[in-house]
Amino acid sequence: MIFIMKPGASDTEIQHVVERIEKKGLSPHVSKGTERTIIGARGDEQKLAELPLAAIPGVERVIPVLKPYRLASREVAPSGTAVSVGGVKIGAGHFMMCAGPCTVESLPVLAETARLVRAAGAQALRGGAFKPRTSPYAFQGLGEDGLKFLREVGDAEGLPVVTEVRDLRHVELVARYADCLQVGARNMQNFDLLLELGRVRKPVLLKRGLSATIKELLMSAEYILAEGNHEVILCERGIRTFETATRGTLDISAVAVLKAESHLPVMVDPSHAAGRADLVESLTLAAVAAGADGIIVEVHPCPEEAVCDGEQALLPAKFTEMMKKVKAIRKVVA
Amino acid sequence: MIFIMKPGASDTEIQHVVERIEKKGLSPHVSKGTERTIIGARGDEQKLAELPLAAIPGVERVIPVLKPYRLASREVAPSGTAVSVGGVKIGAGHFMMCAGPCTVESLPVLAETARLVRAAGAQALRGGAFKPRTSPYAFQGLGEDGLKFLREVGDAEGLPVVTEVRDLRHVELVARYADCLQVGARNMQNFDLLLELGRVRKPVLLKRGLSATIKELLMSAEYILAEGNHEVILCERGIRTFETATRGTLDISAVAVLKAESHLPVMVDPSHAAGRADLVESLTLAAVAAGADGIIVEVHPCPEEAVCDGEQALLPAKFTEMMKKVKAIRKVVA
Amino acid sequence: MIFIMKPGASDTEIQHVVERIEKKGLSPHVSKGTERTIIGARGDEQKLAELPLAAIPGVERVIPVLKPYRLASREVAPSGTAVSVGGVKIGAGHFMMCAGPCTVESLPVLAETARLVRAAGAQALRGGAFKPRTSPYAFQGLGEDGLKFLREVGDAEGLPVVTEVRDLRHVELVARYADCLQVGARNMQNFDLLLELGRVRKPVLLKRGLSATIKELLMSAEYILAEGNHEVILCERGIRTFETATRGTLDISAVAVLKAESHLPVMVDPSHAAGRADLVESLTLAAVAAGADGIIVEVHPCPEEAVCDGEQALLPAKFTEMMKKVKAIRKVVA
Amino acid sequence: MIFIMKPGASDTEIQHVVERIEKKGLSPHVSKGTERTIIGARGDEQKLAELPLAAIPGVERVIPVLKPYRLASREVAPSGTAVSVGGVKIGAGHFMMCAGPCTVESLPVLAETARLVRAAGAQALRGGAFKPRTSPYAFQGLGEDGLKFLREVGDAEGLPVVTEVRDLRHVELVARYADCLQVGARNMQNFDLLLELGRVRKPVLLKRGLSATIKELLMSAEYILAEGNHEVILCERGIRTFETATRGTLDISAVAVLKAESHLPVMVDPSHAAGRADLVESLTLAAVAAGADGIIVEVHPCPEEAVCDGEQALLPAKFTEMMKKVKAIRKVVA
Repeated sequence: MIFIMKPGASDTEIQHVVERIEKKGLSPHVSKGTERTIIGARGDEQKLAELPLAAIPGVERVIPVLKPYRLASREVAPSGTAVSVGGVKIGAGHFMMCAGPCTVESLPVLAETARLVRAAGAQALRGGAFKPRTSPYAFQGLGEDGLKFLREVGDAEGLPVVTEVRDLRHVELVARYADCLQVGARNMQNFDLLLELGRVRKPVLLKRGLSATIKELLMSAEYILAEGNHEVILCERGIRTFETATRGTLDISAVAVLKAESHLPVMVDPSHAAGRADLVESLTLAAVAAGADGIIVEVHPCPEEAVCDGEQALLPAKFTEMMKKVKAIRKVVA
Repeated sequence: MIFIMKPGASDTEIQHVVERIEKKGLSPHVSKGTERTIIGARGDEQKLAELPLAAIPGVERVIPVLKPYRLASREVAPSGTAVSVGGVKIGAGHFMMCAGPCTVESLPVLAETARLVRAAGAQALRGGAFKPRTSPYAFQGLGEDGLKFLREVGDAEGLPVVTEVRDLRHVELVARYADCLQVGARNMQNFDLLLELGRVRKPVLLKRGLSATIKELLMSAEYILAEGNHEVILCERGIRTFETATRGTLDISAVAVLKAESHLPVMVDPSHAAGRADLVESLTLAAVAAGADGIIVEVHPCPEEAVCDGEQALLPAKFTEMMKKVKAIRKVVA
Repeated sequence: MIFIMKPGASDTEIQHVVERIEKKGLSPHVSKGTERTIIGARGDEQKLAELPLAAIPGVERVIPVLKPYRLASREVAPSGTAVSVGGVKIGAGHFMMCAGPCTVESLPVLAETARLVRAAGAQALRGGAFKPRTSPYAFQGLGEDGLKFLREVGDAEGLPVVTEVRDLRHVELVARYADCLQVGARNMQNFDLLLELGRVRKPVLLKRGLSATIKELLMSAEYILAEGNHEVILCERGIRTFETATRGTLDISAVAVLKAESHLPVMVDPSHAAGRADLVESLTLAAVAAGADGIIVEVHPCPEEAVCDGEQALLPAKFTEMMKKVKAIRKVVA
Repeated sequence: MIFIMKPGASDTEIQHVVERIEKKGLSPHVSKGTERTIIGARGDEQKLAELPLAAIPGVERVIPVLKPYRLASREVAPSGTAVSVGGVKIGAGHFMMCAGPCTVESLPVLAETARLVRAAGAQALRGGAFKPRTSPYAFQGLGEDGLKFLREVGDAEGLPVVTEVRDLRHVELVARYADCLQVGARNMQNFDLLLELGRVRKPVLLKRGLSATIKELLMSAEYILAEGNHEVILCERGIRTFETATRGTLDISAVAVLKAESHLPVMVDPSHAAGRADLVESLTLAAVAAGADGIIVEVHPCPEEAVCDGEQALLPAKFTEMMKKVKAIRKVVA
């Protein structure tokens, strides 16, 4: 921790900082510059973290030297970690394509979609049973029926199943049916949900919040990891900016930044980022080229009949065509 | 609902839109312009809402005519609604100042703070017992003990108590002790928590999410209202932007926009918006001048010893001084 | 300047940084912590500024200790600077209300507006002769005729005149007619225009860019100041965020931050921030309460006939009513 | 143009809108719905554009049906336009890699860089002679000497030259030496500079502003096109968001959106978006996969000695390695 004092900081104020550092068991180191005094604190920085150090009189800024995440940090596994989603590996060189409808609507539609995406090369099936909707009047998902359909279709096609858990009281229920539990963007900092997921023995797909920084995404992963679940997959899905041509702005830089900062696998969700089907191929290929370990994308046999988010769903034929390019680009970058 | 068709939309595509509108019980109205065809849908727009209408072939854009919120809308109570927080009214001409520490740390510190803010004119006491913290390693609050201290001190000083509920399983517990349940910014779209709060008979202070639009804040209020709890207070607390001089950017325009759009009382939290004590007075006075119905602000007798967010806490003496100006400005705008 | 080295930085890398610091005439100071090595550079930090120090092998981060602006800094004039706009002072305790139409349209409309705002208490007249328009097909202003009308009306009413200069070749021309030259938000980092304005002997009203940080606004002021013009007025006019209910998001915190960082007067433009006349009073009063030294606001006798930005123009009667509240709040905070 | 009236709009207000539409030569069409009246205006929408229609009493919203840009629009050249940069084509299937130092520092460094990037496959040379710098105290470029070095080295290597013009008085000067004139992000809405560039017979590389929408970028291109210069290349270079891990957030979706909306070639600048050399390859490959027509990237033989932006410059060896992947991905998507 480095303390930069205000220009006119008094000796008493400097001494006070020195004492606070010593009281916490670190060793202070005062350096008087031409215009400012700087105080370094050597030792276990974590003991000072979360204290309101900038509130100490005479202090202008406090700069942490270390990263606030540990278990999520790249140093833990420099060559990366592979997470197994129902037997399909993602990360550390393994790539996973996950596709399916936004929402589970009925068994036949789901079965047809699964069959088609599997034929095109998808290795996992997505679909929502519990939907977080902005409006209380909107369809909120089929609930446990949706989970059953997912399991049945996933088993039939040999595809592991990824689905969202919205309510922390449903973690066990969802974990019974699904191979991977997804945390939606709006729940990225629902810390109690993260704690529950830390106690489950299923992989968690953690989506970045709409205005979450990369650091905050890693801190949310840290919640799950610290609670004992080591199978976390990070997912970039678009952040909120002033641009209105797209639903979100896919932060493609986040792929490389996350892979540099963390050992965890990184997925990209081009469907929610774009909110428009016509952009999905472009974003998917970009994500693969950028080094993403996986893609989670929405596919629907009849988008205009979809109960939710049909605007961003690919037709199966389009998905099939895109998969060929995905594989070709994957060969270049892997 | 207005459908703007693509430049080259075919008659078949236009006819298809007409049929979809009719199937939902609305009456379509086709208007062929020089360059585009526009189709209006008269009738109950809600029946079309949430459908992926932009996914219909030939459709370029779909524009809703009505607002998606109803119970939160100004039309419900054009002269505004007053909510009673333990007997203290806010809204419809009533102003409430709520002050206290970020986190409940101990009974003596809380008691001292409450005594001082009450003497200065505060009408409610704030304090966190369950804290949403970005880091799993940070102090998460005293839990039920914190609630007990709040109740005890609130009763002693005659101040109603406002505190956050973080976990939806704690709603009943918190409601037993508190006069008003706060939803933190990170939980604004934790829809299951909102549903639980809709079933409680205590007012809810709903904070705007860090990247939530004003419309989304109102939709989250709608979740609580639609579930049967009509006592919702909206709170602007700073949104996330590129500016780094402050923790968030206080969206002062939101005060007037919310009051124009909704009948619900509007509070402002200058402490979290600024993240720096030296800006709190300026933001508080601005919020009062802008027409806010209440302020929720952090005060601590010794900010640098605060266990959380001390950087943004006012000293009691500063709070007292600020209250005089608050009252004077209130007289100008009320 | 503080250099934080990467975890595994070698002695050679550390030595290399030490040498680069010494070569620039500063004295390096190496501090080896438990996990990182930190190197402080004592001396004239400006000699290191603008160098790509983070590109030096082994360096993780470089943290400047000093602010990059000097002449704009508060330290230059701790009690603040008053700028005189054609005899009307702003800053250091002086408040200035500047009002008028967005664009100068005709002499009679301008004269009527000026008469009405002056009667209500405005001390300066605004109006655009050279308009920066997003579309090449939109009206771009009356040019020199507009300047003449402004001068004529300003003289008749005894109001100094504030108007925008868009093209750096027009600086002299505009300076001949106007009492204060305005730099529009889109030109805040048009550095050649700033340099020209630095050579003029008229005050400059510098608007913050749509996505400019407070620091960048001050750096742009520094361009003008460093060139020799010491009369700069800063203006917050709304920044760009994801919120669409308003044209921009008025960063009300910027008022207090700018006043803490700089000695220059700070104005607020509520009209462009809101983009809607119904919010202008709320934002104006907020800005005055926040401590702004002046307001620049759009007033038009018939907004729907305005050639530009009529949506955000106040009617004269509304302006008159608002001025009473402005004066009352000013008394509270001054 | 579609007018949505307020809920209680009176017949007089509706009639007033009807008359204003008719006065402009369009034909109004009134549709009274259950809750709102909607008025369509058929005819040449451009006649209504830029009028403050939302200021008309009783009007809630005004929705344009057409896009505000025409010459930049895809409809002008559905199969895309190729622009020739000194003989090298970009757009309509042609890809161009442009590389070089941020700033021209000296003839030998520029010559070495040019030789190396050419050997690796670059088809154009970039380098700044006039630098827009945030600080007035920073190095502002070599000026005309820089232009001479660029021309000399470009001719020697057979590489066309791309360089920025910052001051509109330098347009002719820069056009004498360069094959393509670049408009920096901060000048995207320097409309007078755009007008000057519209009169030049050299291609213009127009960078998107830090907070410019895609629509605004196209409107700025329209300024150049409308003035008579049809050779405009659009460039995405990162927008400003709350994320601080990168200098900007590369809006990768903009590539596909721009190509859908416009016939003009689209480049991506990964160096300025990232601000960090370690991310440049990932972003470059993503941009190529997303369908960009060209890349403009910074390369320097010794980044830590660069006078500007060395943090984001690639080493020539790294560039050479990256070029192989660029070519391979280009084959997949072209």
